[in-house]
Amino acid sequence: MIKKLAIFGVGLIGGSLAKALRLAGVCETIVGCSRSEEHLKRAVELGVIDEYTLDPATAVGDADMVLLSVPLGAMRPLLEKIADHLAEGAVVTDAGSSKASVVAAAKLAFGEVPDFFVPGHPIAGREKSGVEAALADLFVDHKVILTPLPNTSPSAVERVTKMWEATGAKVQTLGVEQHDKVLAATSHLPHVVAYSLVETVSETDCVDQIFEYAAGGFRDSSRVASSDPVMWRDVCLENREAILDSITEFQANLGDLKSLIETSDADALLELFAHAKKVRDQHVTNS
Amino acid sequence: MIKKLAIFGVGLIGGSLAKALRLAGVCETIVGCSRSEEHLKRAVELGVIDEYTLDPATAVGDADMVLLSVPLGAMRPLLEKIADHLAEGAVVTDAGSSKASVVAAAKLAFGEVPDFFVPGHPIAGREKSGVEAALADLFVDHKVILTPLPNTSPSAVERVTKMWEATGAKVQTLGVEQHDKVLAATSHLPHVVAYSLVETVSETDCVDQIFEYAAGGFRDSSRVASSDPVMWRDVCLENREAILDSITEFQANLGDLKSLIETSDADALLELFAHAKKVRDQHVTNS
Repeated sequence: MIKKLAIFGVGLIGGSLAKALRLAGVCETIVGCSRSEEHLKRAVELGVIDEYTLDPATAVGDADMVLLSVPLGAMRPLLEKIADHLAEGAVVTDAGSSKASVVAAAKLAFGEVPDFFVPGHPIAGREKSGVEAALADLFVDHKVILTPLPNTSPSAVERVTKMWEATGAKVQTLGVEQHDKVLAATSHLPHVVAYSLVETVSETDCVDQIFEYAAGGFRDSSRVASSDPVMWRDVCLENREAILDSITEFQANLGDLKSLIETSDADALLELFAHAKKVRDQHVTNS
Repeated sequence: MIKKLAIFGVGLIGGSLAKALRLAGVCETIVGCSRSEEHLKRAVELGVIDEYTLDPATAVGDADMVLLSVPLGAMRPLLEKIADHLAEGAVVTDAGSSKASVVAAAKLAFGEVPDFFVPGHPIAGREKSGVEAALADLFVDHKVILTPLPNTSPSAVERVTKMWEATGAKVQTLGVEQHDKVLAATSHLPHVVAYSLVETVSETDCVDQIFEYAAGGFRDSSRVASSDPVMWRDVCLENREAILDSITEFQANLGDLKSLIETSDADALLELFAHAKKVRDQHVTNS
């Protein structure tokens, strides 16, 4: 049971966690904190949080669990603001899409990464953002990856694990670097590609017609380009190296495929498409 | 009312048209023809078609409407087989994803493109293929693009239009070249990109883990990579120039975005992502 949960950034992720924990009845009080009083008021009106404050120090004053679900670029200044005000025994975790950068931010804010800080990443999202998009069942059957460090307290990991399990999520642990590499390939690269797809289509001289005739293929392929731009700017900046590696590999693959089309290599095209279909059908379940 | 419809290629598109016309009660008899007797038997068992033949000449002998829904590479040999056997007054249309290549095939098969041939393209699909995937409502509220030539008979266009409208589709006309350019950007490029995304992920050294952690973003972005490899090989070969142009434009956009990440240009990244989100949200309705 969590007595008081402080959520920084009451948007899609923070709001969905609040709703899920409330539904599960495992959290007494939820306080929200962000820079926008308007958003926080809305979150209270919607019943997502119990109370709010604009002051980070006040928010964490008597919280036994703290979630940082702000854009990656906001992690370090926020950690610096709460570092000296955390309650004794409080556990801090985050929901950032890259982990090395959050760990680095915690090290800078605290001098060393505290043993009560459990880096985490719920693998769930929607292309909609904001507290209005929050869903109590957003995490059901989704993975939450925790990337504890060698000095992280096992009891802190356990408390964060129980919190996420109460939302229906499945909690697993990975190394920090491994997390960042895997996510660059499965999540960050598809976002970068989707943004480029939309830009490509928007630049053609018959853009209205192109969108008029866009079928399900384009809709699905570009869906994540409707995600929150601030979040994805920060992901690109904070998981830079792993994303650049993924883009380079993708560019090589696309270049190879383009060459096959240029040379009208029917056999190799069929082989490539059949291979990709086999790999995807084997690993990805449509829903 | 269609007295006898001959469908070549009773897969997702041909099978869905058959089901839809049957439901609408606007077609007396449907004969299927393909190279696989097994598939045709299955289509009869499922009630999708009334009868079948493996002989194209027999299939068209007394058909007043003929649909070619075979892969693009099979269009020319098929047109050559039926050219001398069509019934007086029969209308022929197709469902190919590129139109210049089908028009060229008709010209080669008939000497000149006949006035009863109406090039067409239903903008609908699923990543599943085959007659089992056929749906009576596949075309409801979807667009069907017809690309009649200057010599195409208006009454032939009208009969094909009425056939598609009976399925719930909205029929529009475009020029052949314009169709191929628009479809390259909205459909063919997203497919090429999805195949390259899956190949990129499948080549990494922790492929199982990568797929294990793949979230909705990857699932949506790569969905069309589960499409029929033969169909997409043919699309790439038959709409080659327009697809290569689209890939080149996409490569330039992806290269620009990569440079912004390399130089950590936060402002330009935010501007690009916000622009892409705005364009997509404006034009694409999620479903």
